[in-house]
Amino acid sequence: MLILISNDDGIWAPGLKALREALETLGEVYVVAPDRPRSATGLGITIHKPLRADKVTFPDSNSRGYAVNGTPSDCVKLAIQALLPAKPDIVVSGINLGPNLGTDVLYSGTVSAALEGVINDVPSIAVSQVSWECTDFDYAAQFTKRLVKVVLEKGLPEETLLNVNIPVTKCGEKPPGIKVTRLGKRRYENIFEKRTDPRGKTYYWMGGEVYDIQEDPDTDIAVTKKGEVSVTPLLFDVTNHRVIKFVGEWNLDKIL
Amino acid sequence: MLILISNDDGIWAPGLKALREALETLGEVYVVAPDRPRSATGLGITIHKPLRADKVTFPDSNSRGYAVNGTPSDCVKLAIQALLPAKPDIVVSGINLGPNLGTDVLYSGTVSAALEGVINDVPSIAVSQVSWECTDFDYAAQFTKRLVKVVLEKGLPEETLLNVNIPVTKCGEKPPGIKVTRLGKRRYENIFEKRTDPRGKTYYWMGGEVYDIQEDPDTDIAVTKKGEVSVTPLLFDVTNHRVIKFVGEWNLDKIL
Repeated sequence: MLILISNDDGIWAPGLKALREALETLGEVYVVAPDRPRSATGLGITIHKPLRADKVTFPDSNSRGYAVNGTPSDCVKLAIQALLPAKPDIVVSGINLGPNLGTDVLYSGTVSAALEGVINDVPSIAVSQVSWECTDFDYAAQFTKRLVKVVLEKGLPEETLLNVNIPVTKCGEKPPGIKVTRLGKRRYENIFEKRTDPRGKTYYWMGGEVYDIQEDPDTDIAVTKKGEVSVTPLLFDVTNHRVIKFVGEWNLDKIL
Repeated sequence: MLILISNDDGIWAPGLKALREALETLGEVYVVAPDRPRSATGLGITIHKPLRADKVTFPDSNSRGYAVNGTPSDCVKLAIQALLPAKPDIVVSGINLGPNLGTDVLYSGTVSAALEGVINDVPSIAVSQVSWECTDFDYAAQFTKRLVKVVLEKGLPEETLLNVNIPVTKCGEKPPGIKVTRLGKRRYENIFEKRTDPRGKTYYWMGGEVYDIQEDPDTDIAVTKKGEVSVTPLLFDVTNHRVIKFVGEWNLDKIL
């Protein structure tokens, strides 16, 4: 089995190391990941400059690694199209340090790496650890390994990836449950801090406090708040099918 | 009426100029756009460094402009949250030079600017010109102006933006029709060219030829190929609702 791993925290991130070590017991692992942290890049890709893929070796491991000077999406695209000896059986992105929930998934490099896998017709999973007191990725990595086995056995429908958020409130403590969820909605308040630089010029820095405007019990936000694992199937067809008829009734021919 | 315009081709792009001039007749226009071309950035945002918003004036115009050293998504977020005097009535992104169709919309900076508008609860439209022989944006700009009026009159459902692709095969020639569509699927072949730099090191450059794997007559791809205008409603909830039940039946509790 050929497994492709990527992330958005960069090729030396501890979450990626834990993931690699867990998945190495399942098959041949390729790690193709950004050479530095590239979070919040969405599905950005690099089209106007060259990409480098520098070989990387990992201590006590036969896995191949490439550090790429691009986004998570670049990494997965380059891996599948140019670096790997064959199409991978699965793409696993993560393990991200911190949640990827609700509206935030649209900005997430972790989720985008998995989305790029699906765009290339490979079953894909994005994994994030919702950590408060524990920054040890052992449980999340072992859980992901078991989930990879299930996904490969059951198969994922076309165009679908799984976005997984694993709360680890105390190291070594198993989450009390797991739910298949839909995305909730997150917004941020006081997003930009306006400041003055040492030369008197204004700049803005994105920050802001999250508030969740949709916490229905079946959302990823609500489920992880209870400490349970959330698994959300995501689709890359963003057509709003229900609205096609509504807009169709506007008779836009009139304004041609 | 307060109108926010952005794009991904940069604040001095001719498509943005045509759009601004057309929409200035409808209300007060703010242009908040990247200070340089930022195509294919997806919904990337800038969180680890400061953003600048340098004031820009346009000849023979009272519209306010800000050139931002960030992505299209940054521009719209910063505009709505920090620069504009009030929430805009509409966000219009474009007019992009070249199509934004099918799977490509996920990477598109033009579409992402409109998506960011919707995330901020503002009705939004992304406009692209599918040009072959004509690089004049007059028709597309005037069409967009009429569409903006319709959208403001009819209203868009929550979480929905319109992605508009306007074929302009010959300057001054009206497209033969308009359809409300769903996204088709595009893939690229021979995506990466592997080359050797003057110092003997390998690099990769993303290129590739598009091929459309889904051209059903109701897709944006098929409609624009016929020269007709395509209007696709897009939704930012990327949950694959139909798959929730399927994955739920996996009984993932077993692998906790």
